[in-house]
Amino acid sequence: MSVTLADVARRAGVSPATASRALGGRPHVAPATRMRVRRAADELNFVVSPEASRLAGGARGRVGVVVPHLAQWSCGAALEGLEPVLRGAGVDLLLYGVGDPAARTAFFADLPARRRVDALVVLGTALDEQERARLELMAVPVVAAAGRGGQPGVRVDEHAAARHAVDHLLHLGHRRIGAVAAAGPPDGVLEAFAAAHRDALHDAGLAHDAGLLVRVGRGAPGAAEGAGRLLGLREPPTAVVASSDEVALGVVRTLGRARLRVPDDVSVVGLGDHPLAEAADLTTVCRPAREQGAEAGRMVLEALAGGAVPTVVLPSRLVVRGSTAPPGRTT
Amino acid sequence: MSVTLADVARRAGVSPATASRALGGRPHVAPATRMRVRRAADELNFVVSPEASRLAGGARGRVGVVVPHLAQWSCGAALEGLEPVLRGAGVDLLLYGVGDPAARTAFFADLPARRRVDALVVLGTALDEQERARLELMAVPVVAAAGRGGQPGVRVDEHAAARHAVDHLLHLGHRRIGAVAAAGPPDGVLEAFAAAHRDALHDAGLAHDAGLLVRVGRGAPGAAEGAGRLLGLREPPTAVVASSDEVALGVVRTLGRARLRVPDDVSVVGLGDHPLAEAADLTTVCRPAREQGAEAGRMVLEALAGGAVPTVVLPSRLVVRGSTAPPGRTT
Repeated sequence: MSVTLADVARRAGVSPATASRALGGRPHVAPATRMRVRRAADELNFVVSPEASRLAGGARGRVGVVVPHLAQWSCGAALEGLEPVLRGAGVDLLLYGVGDPAARTAFFADLPARRRVDALVVLGTALDEQERARLELMAVPVVAAAGRGGQPGVRVDEHAAARHAVDHLLHLGHRRIGAVAAAGPPDGVLEAFAAAHRDALHDAGLAHDAGLLVRVGRGAPGAAEGAGRLLGLREPPTAVVASSDEVALGVVRTLGRARLRVPDDVSVVGLGDHPLAEAADLTTVCRPAREQGAEAGRMVLEALAGGAVPTVVLPSRLVVRGSTAPPGRTT
Repeated sequence: MSVTLADVARRAGVSPATASRALGGRPHVAPATRMRVRRAADELNFVVSPEASRLAGGARGRVGVVVPHLAQWSCGAALEGLEPVLRGAGVDLLLYGVGDPAARTAFFADLPARRRVDALVVLGTALDEQERARLELMAVPVVAAAGRGGQPGVRVDEHAAARHAVDHLLHLGHRRIGAVAAAGPPDGVLEAFAAAHRDALHDAGLAHDAGLLVRVGRGAPGAAEGAGRLLGLREPPTAVVASSDEVALGVVRTLGRARLRVPDDVSVVGLGDHPLAEAADLTTVCRPAREQGAEAGRMVLEALAGGAVPTVVLPSRLVVRGSTAPPGRTT
């Protein structure tokens, strides 16, 4: 003798339609009512199958989240901002990793045929023309988050973020400011970083010196190479801005090996506000990853309700810690 | 005039049943056939709705992944290992954050009534008795990963991991070895850490000194407090083992502020092998997070096919970098 929705509704003292909406995670149910219905369903061991739930009142929302680098801290932080927004609205979050090129190609090739999602959030990557065309076939809303822009959604102004870092060093009195741009972020982000470094020095009236910007590979070897090249300049910089906190910490370590102290001998600024930046006492510029995720979640809910996807640029902010100081404090 | 599954099958030269299996991501279709069917579906702009797909041959697999701390690097790494395994099998990955206690309670209260998943992976957290009881109501397989054990699934031996760290310091010749246990990991993990520290010193024939183990709060303040308390001992340690790499980096920073150099004055070992440990040149013990995720993925697929969930303990391994050296190298 199986328990029916009507049994649950009766026990909760609501109509079957309300019980269905409450259990289906759909809107327009008062929280207290929802709780009462859930408790009744619980007490009766009532189980809604997804099929039954769909039959009872239309499909639930399903949002696909496309992420190239799940292990990257900023993706995790963005997911941590996004997930509760979707969960709170009773929308499922389906995760799709597209880290390696083959997986990425397969994902965009399959998606229109499989059509498992009602909307997509694209985290920390930019779509090429062909990928956009595939998504258009699906005719679902797409929200970009933490990318390089060029697509509706939420991001930070990368040029402004890098300028905060270089301007901070200029305000401290530094005049030789090196920049280490390490491979990793989407192309546009590194271009904005290089441009901000150049523009800040130019606006401060300093002569252009192409040697102060070094482009290196990813990871610890890239950071070490970048720091090494700057130290090898005829006139080494007194401060270094790095394209990420990870790179900045590698620079700090390389300076330490060269017996240079941070910030006494050389100041270092990162970009991002990595969870470890505080522990490492690293001055950095916070790109609010979690807030970008939450904002993307709100946008995708709006889009599911029929709204257009806007473009929102969140502010970044300088976080001053112990890795920067005025130049010439060497004792 | 809409395209039917039969049209796709005809174009691909397969039976409609095979075409359905291929597009539905279900097993028993040769990769070449699957590709041919997908290409045919593509060329015809054939769109399978999830409903149609289900009607054509039973529900797809849906695996829920329950994660308390999405922004924690080890959770991201485990997800990066898990996701491609599920995707490769055509199984959807639904993400559930249970970071705050209210979300966690709501998740376990709702799950039996909502029943959106065919199996669960629980990442980096331990379930209490009530939570297990809720899951039993659902009667779906549960795989634990990167937890403290006590539940079938995959994990590392936390006691052995911490012993690797302390034994490394003993082999280098250290005899005063401090330990900083910072809040954060599931309880059992910290207990194993404390026990391994005590056991390693005991096995080395060193007298017990309760002051060498300090328990502190989470984050940078905890790490700073831990390092400060060890430095304040009448006979400070020449080496420190930390309960995580994050804590180890905070200890390194605190030592630096006290003008102590790593490893010349004090050696420091972390636990985990954080993505930044290499850049920071930190000696640590690798708990393979990504491999735990991949293993959990394989386990859950087996369980979906009717198998039981085994318990697998993956080995951890010492990664020697520049933050450890023999004692007394002070110049």
